[in-house]
Amino acid sequence: MIYLDNAATTKPNSVACERAKEWLDEKFYNPSALYREGLAMQSGLKQARSALLSKIADESWFELVFTSCGTESDNQAIFSFAKRGNAVTTAGEHSAVSEPFSELKRRGVAEPRFAPLQKDGRVDVEKLLELIDEKTSFVSVMHVNNEIGAINDVNAIAKAVKRKNPRVIFHSDGVQAYGKIPFKLCKEIDLYSVSAHKIGGLKGVGGLIKRKSLALPAYLIGGGQESGKRSGTENTFGIKQFEYAAEEKFRTLKEDLIRLTEYRETLFSLLDKDVYVRLSSKDASPYILSVSAVGLRGEVLLHMANDLGLIVGTGSACSSNAKLRYSKVLLACGYDEKTADGALRLSFSPMTTKEEVEEAAAILNRIGKELTARMK
Amino acid sequence: MIYLDNAATTKPNSVACERAKEWLDEKFYNPSALYREGLAMQSGLKQARSALLSKIADESWFELVFTSCGTESDNQAIFSFAKRGNAVTTAGEHSAVSEPFSELKRRGVAEPRFAPLQKDGRVDVEKLLELIDEKTSFVSVMHVNNEIGAINDVNAIAKAVKRKNPRVIFHSDGVQAYGKIPFKLCKEIDLYSVSAHKIGGLKGVGGLIKRKSLALPAYLIGGGQESGKRSGTENTFGIKQFEYAAEEKFRTLKEDLIRLTEYRETLFSLLDKDVYVRLSSKDASPYILSVSAVGLRGEVLLHMANDLGLIVGTGSACSSNAKLRYSKVLLACGYDEKTADGALRLSFSPMTTKEEVEEAAAILNRIGKELTARMK
Repeated sequence: MIYLDNAATTKPNSVACERAKEWLDEKFYNPSALYREGLAMQSGLKQARSALLSKIADESWFELVFTSCGTESDNQAIFSFAKRGNAVTTAGEHSAVSEPFSELKRRGVAEPRFAPLQKDGRVDVEKLLELIDEKTSFVSVMHVNNEIGAINDVNAIAKAVKRKNPRVIFHSDGVQAYGKIPFKLCKEIDLYSVSAHKIGGLKGVGGLIKRKSLALPAYLIGGGQESGKRSGTENTFGIKQFEYAAEEKFRTLKEDLIRLTEYRETLFSLLDKDVYVRLSSKDASPYILSVSAVGLRGEVLLHMANDLGLIVGTGSACSSNAKLRYSKVLLACGYDEKTADGALRLSFSPMTTKEEVEEAAAILNRIGKELTARMK
Repeated sequence: MIYLDNAATTKPNSVACERAKEWLDEKFYNPSALYREGLAMQSGLKQARSALLSKIADESWFELVFTSCGTESDNQAIFSFAKRGNAVTTAGEHSAVSEPFSELKRRGVAEPRFAPLQKDGRVDVEKLLELIDEKTSFVSVMHVNNEIGAINDVNAIAKAVKRKNPRVIFHSDGVQAYGKIPFKLCKEIDLYSVSAHKIGGLKGVGGLIKRKSLALPAYLIGGGQESGKRSGTENTFGIKQFEYAAEEKFRTLKEDLIRLTEYRETLFSLLDKDVYVRLSSKDASPYILSVSAVGLRGEVLLHMANDLGLIVGTGSACSSNAKLRYSKVLLACGYDEKTADGALRLSFSPMTTKEEVEEAAAILNRIGKELTARMK
């Protein structure tokens, strides 16, 4: 089975699982406990916190709060700070951001505003800035788009946003960027969401990176864990496995980037251009190649590929339960419904091999031809 | 090392970890994915949901929503339904319930009311009912108290509450009861919180059992997982391990109960009555024995025990970060500060042996005598 749906989730890194195993066996204590073994759990968490944070941020300026997933991180950021006036985001956000923004309107706490995308999937920064005024309390711009791979220059955007309104709290959903795209958080970013399971970590573990001087209200309230910012007994095994998975991932981040860029181009070059058009731009994340078999149904191709041993995605796995017929992100890029309907998302991991990519192209060409013939 | 702090957390069940391991290796797919492997993940979740729920509830009346912990379950229940008028709970609740109740007041959404406890730690039901009036929107009564082990008859209480005001939404925190105390949810209970890591499951996994006909708003909003009631990619490994751990736990639930009752009595009978008084009543959960070395400091005894190879708790591990000098639960039972300050919580698991219990008593007697001598 060739797995090209790594943007949905990745296989847990087995080295990291093995290293973290002791946190299932001997080191199972409650990190809030006062005895020696409990305190040792806290040290383990502290080490993980520092290791994960320091990969992309200055530890003197930022800190990391462990959460249960990227969705929780996004929800906590949005509901904590989008509390008055208006809140601005993009038309390309993952549902973990776009749905809470819609909820702001339903609750009547802030007016949500959605900035349009460019054809390549990046937010139109000029139009985003136009939406920001003196009443804007919160801005959220995703780092890497989960459907098309477009990379927003969130550091530059955060700076421009703060120039326009320095009181804005700026958040970025970094779930598809962390451990994949070389990046350091600038001081103008107040909050940044990360997730373990997109880079060989486990499902059920996430983090919310925040400016230290920002008072973050707890979203889960109780025993006061995570310095009062996130109550609930810490998922110690998952957190340590995340630390180790990130260590593995960041170690080869740059080589992976070069190799996967090459694979992505190889894959696209091998695809039958009578069937597939490219949606992801060349400067998008090399982890994601979105293409469309315009006139065919992506979902049908997904199942045909599945039968032949190839796993691909259509849009975001997280919205596949929703009733959306077409990807709203692709429509926001300006693609028509036919293009959106034919979309396939091919997403890679460092474990992806050149042979797999070539084989995937052959399968995609075969099923594209088959389905085209069937449609005639 | 003798571990008698199982109410804080338990060692993950190794059989369950081993059985769940395939959900880390081959079965790592995103349960929202449309291809065969993704659908198989959904089947796995469905099976876990049914297995965990059917242990204590009628599946035709109740359903289970997976969450990241007991705290999340409690928060979702409280913030979803304590939205107007007043909300009633007990003075014995875990901070995952008591803190959100205090938050209701700060937010000005509902007036929190706290019913007093009896000496044995159970809520005074008559006084609880007096607090409920036509403006009560929500009532939460914990099933088993985490500090003293007192068991509230939540089925009877829910019925009495509904007789007084049938529109009340009734919730119970079952974190210290699920998998330990024989119990079936009656139809008058609307919501019931459970947690994995108290019965050999992993930290980072919980559940909120709810009446099917109750419309539960999402607390985490996004991709619409858990039928829209809890967004975020499901913690599949943790959930399957919870299923298997519960299977192990429930299999011997009744024998464990008898054996641990015997161990608890053995332990107390061996304790030096010049030092230790018993706080937990005989009809409390056999998993928890709370005692107090009145006049001595429980925290000092905890560290002395730790040095001799015995791990015990003082109050709730989850509140050990807080600045509470004395257990508010013990004060609510009517104990004085001296008794509360000397409290030790000895909590068991099915893995606890008779030899450990005897050895624990010897250590507790030794340090009790030592500290008493030091104080003179």
